[in-house]
Amino acid sequence: MWKPNRQSNQPLYQQIADDLERRISYGEFPPGSVLPSERKLAEQLEVNRSTVVLAYSELRALGIIDSRSGSGTRVTKYKWGATPKHPPNWHRYAEGGSFLPNLPFMRRIREALGQNQSLIDFASGELAADISPVEEINILMNENHYTEYLGYDNPQGFVPLRQELVNYLSQYRDIHTTDSSILITSGSQQSLYLITQCLLSPGDAVAIEDPSYCYSLPMFQTAGLRLFRLPVDHKGVRPEDIRTLYKKHRIKMVFINPNFQNPTGAVLDNERRIQLLDVASELGLPIVEDDPFSLTAYEGAPPPPLKSIDSIGSVLYIGSFSKIAASGLRVGWMVAPHSVIERLADARQQMDFGLSVIPQRVAAQFLKSPYFVPHMDRLRMHLLYKRDLLIKALQKELPDLITFTIPQGGLHLWCKIIPKINDSKLLEEAIRRGVIFVPGSVYGSDSGYMRFTYARPKAEDIGSGISKFAAALRDVLS
Amino acid sequence: MWKPNRQSNQPLYQQIADDLERRISYGEFPPGSVLPSERKLAEQLEVNRSTVVLAYSELRALGIIDSRSGSGTRVTKYKWGATPKHPPNWHRYAEGGSFLPNLPFMRRIREALGQNQSLIDFASGELAADISPVEEINILMNENHYTEYLGYDNPQGFVPLRQELVNYLSQYRDIHTTDSSILITSGSQQSLYLITQCLLSPGDAVAIEDPSYCYSLPMFQTAGLRLFRLPVDHKGVRPEDIRTLYKKHRIKMVFINPNFQNPTGAVLDNERRIQLLDVASELGLPIVEDDPFSLTAYEGAPPPPLKSIDSIGSVLYIGSFSKIAASGLRVGWMVAPHSVIERLADARQQMDFGLSVIPQRVAAQFLKSPYFVPHMDRLRMHLLYKRDLLIKALQKELPDLITFTIPQGGLHLWCKIIPKINDSKLLEEAIRRGVIFVPGSVYGSDSGYMRFTYARPKAEDIGSGISKFAAALRDVLS
Repeated sequence: MWKPNRQSNQPLYQQIADDLERRISYGEFPPGSVLPSERKLAEQLEVNRSTVVLAYSELRALGIIDSRSGSGTRVTKYKWGATPKHPPNWHRYAEGGSFLPNLPFMRRIREALGQNQSLIDFASGELAADISPVEEINILMNENHYTEYLGYDNPQGFVPLRQELVNYLSQYRDIHTTDSSILITSGSQQSLYLITQCLLSPGDAVAIEDPSYCYSLPMFQTAGLRLFRLPVDHKGVRPEDIRTLYKKHRIKMVFINPNFQNPTGAVLDNERRIQLLDVASELGLPIVEDDPFSLTAYEGAPPPPLKSIDSIGSVLYIGSFSKIAASGLRVGWMVAPHSVIERLADARQQMDFGLSVIPQRVAAQFLKSPYFVPHMDRLRMHLLYKRDLLIKALQKELPDLITFTIPQGGLHLWCKIIPKINDSKLLEEAIRRGVIFVPGSVYGSDSGYMRFTYARPKAEDIGSGISKFAAALRDVLS
Repeated sequence: MWKPNRQSNQPLYQQIADDLERRISYGEFPPGSVLPSERKLAEQLEVNRSTVVLAYSELRALGIIDSRSGSGTRVTKYKWGATPKHPPNWHRYAEGGSFLPNLPFMRRIREALGQNQSLIDFASGELAADISPVEEINILMNENHYTEYLGYDNPQGFVPLRQELVNYLSQYRDIHTTDSSILITSGSQQSLYLITQCLLSPGDAVAIEDPSYCYSLPMFQTAGLRLFRLPVDHKGVRPEDIRTLYKKHRIKMVFINPNFQNPTGAVLDNERRIQLLDVASELGLPIVEDDPFSLTAYEGAPPPPLKSIDSIGSVLYIGSFSKIAASGLRVGWMVAPHSVIERLADARQQMDFGLSVIPQRVAAQFLKSPYFVPHMDRLRMHLLYKRDLLIKALQKELPDLITFTIPQGGLHLWCKIIPKINDSKLLEEAIRRGVIFVPGSVYGSDSGYMRFTYARPKAEDIGSGISKFAAALRDVLS
């Protein structure tokens, strides 16, 4: 006899409901017939009675069965007879699939931002409207008549953009590559998604910084990967930890965000970079380097990417315009060996048939335009200004309650609240008071940490946002 | 002792190479030590000696082992000693992942089109440059200054586009919906991908038309779905077949392209539409209706979608601009219950963080512009003209060798070659002669069928393209 599978991801009651629906549809229980009592079925299936109650309630909601007091649970004529119309159980379909939903905190933040446009937004990891090059893009779109064929794009992405990126990477990132080694993606997000779906298999072990924005992305779990942690200190990750993880778990890939790490802002130490590449090339281990923030370095030259000193070819390099120009362009890129690019371009074609040519063309024009360098200068100035506004506000409002290291680039400040705190309560109280941030647990850290994105709110809102946050914090602590 | 797993998708030799690498890394075989002979290891692992030969050859290529005649196979010092640098085995990574590659025929077609720009292209399922509204889009982009914030888009897609689509769907498709029931996707492709990834689970059974473009999309297999066939005749699918499949295999979803079906061009019969919806609502079975071609109807009113007569709510409706305006916009849409839209929007955010606002804005402007209706009129005229050019050419060149039904809308002609033919040889010979098409087996049919997309080549190339094809066919038959 059939028994529910306790190893399955599907709840027991749903398995039972599915099995009953199947047996009914096969005629085992014809319309009008009586089903086993809840108690009896629970005994047969070796589950709690409450599980059967839930299963029956599901089938009742579907109109498949009917319970009347005194006469037990019967198969309706409604579904299996002559006038039996009902829609699919969409709710159940929406709960299906192997794709995991976003984390509850992330969904809550999205929901709150959707409901209240006036929330002061320290949560969204992107630039404010006034730092995005909207005016420049407008000029470029008006200056450059659109006359290209608007067919499906090259599977690797728009060729002129890839050619511009070859220059960009050489000039700004000291990476020397060819346009056929570049895949254009819908931001870093799609690069990571393609890597987790196409280069790794369920059960593979990978190493991820701790904390890391990667923990906020359920795609790693969706791909069935086992995640192992590389603690980040003020000098970034420790290369020896990678060797240890390789020996213990035979990790297959390492994900690193070495410059102005999200969320900590840490920059990987120079000596550690060399050691890290040594370890990787010794073990034949690929490093995925996500490098979206480097060009925001507030003072001095931006830190170089790992890829620029990777003489062996261990690094898959990912970049994006999202954090330095406009997230709404949805233009990112990956530099990788040809076999990898081909594989990922083929898979991406199946997912979405490639990106629109239009924003890719705008991005290419922006890169080669006289607007790019002044935009970057303005961006760095704005970010530095906003960072200082945030730090001053925190020092003024919460001098004893919060600690942080001052980031030298990037969009985020990573803070620790000194007293013990309930993340969830604090977030709700902050939302109630009109301000929002991301609890650090989203990035894999313990409770009591948080990420403030100073790039996103307007400069004039930063002070009042932190006042509201301080009030929320004091309220939750009291 | 460890044995390779014969049920695994990974080839035996790779499993063996992996295991040896692991044992070496754990110190079981230190640098310089001798490994078992190929014969001995084959006996231990109960595999053919040739499998071990392959595994050793893999490890040799990685620099992990070294074979010298007379002294056997040894662990190198190269990898595990002091100067041990080598890149990851990228080729092997590229072969990994649960995501299946595109079909060999599809990859061959893409490769051939990439190598030879002058191929006459009856393969790509899209419009020619001269039928795309490029000039109209250029005018719209220049008339409408881009001033919106270029941040991350709403997870469901650009709100003004969704609002325009509410009008479009009501006016042209008799579908009455709200903008919150619409998800903007990167073409129909992404809608289908999201459905297969998020609403269905591995092992689920689904029904797909036979033949169908769905067979050309490995995403169904990637999602672990079991596919069952619904034969398409000149009136489309037979609703009773759905009931049979439900009883036999408990199918969870039905995929239908009822209007100018790809590839057959069939239009689902009116009576069958009603029966199909009856069966669906009786079984609580969702129908995914893909409707990209309806507005191309050459004469008379376009056939209505199933969704317009779906009073119960069984239909997930998918549409797109790819086949009626420009595939390079990458704008498609889905109309579905809110729980489904929310689930898919959440998942899509994880895959690519949404679409660029720019092409969505262009699409919205195009829909409400005075250019839309004249474009559609011109499109229908062009398609009809090209269809007739193709039919004339086929009747002239191959009157006895080929049969087809004349399509009344859409972009494709579905043909059968009367004599027995080798698809692969014919495709290669056609490519050699400068013309390309899609073999019907890609769509799940037997060999000897093929799809010609007359929308894609220039009108003036259709005749010469068919001459080349006819020469190729005669050559392969002789």
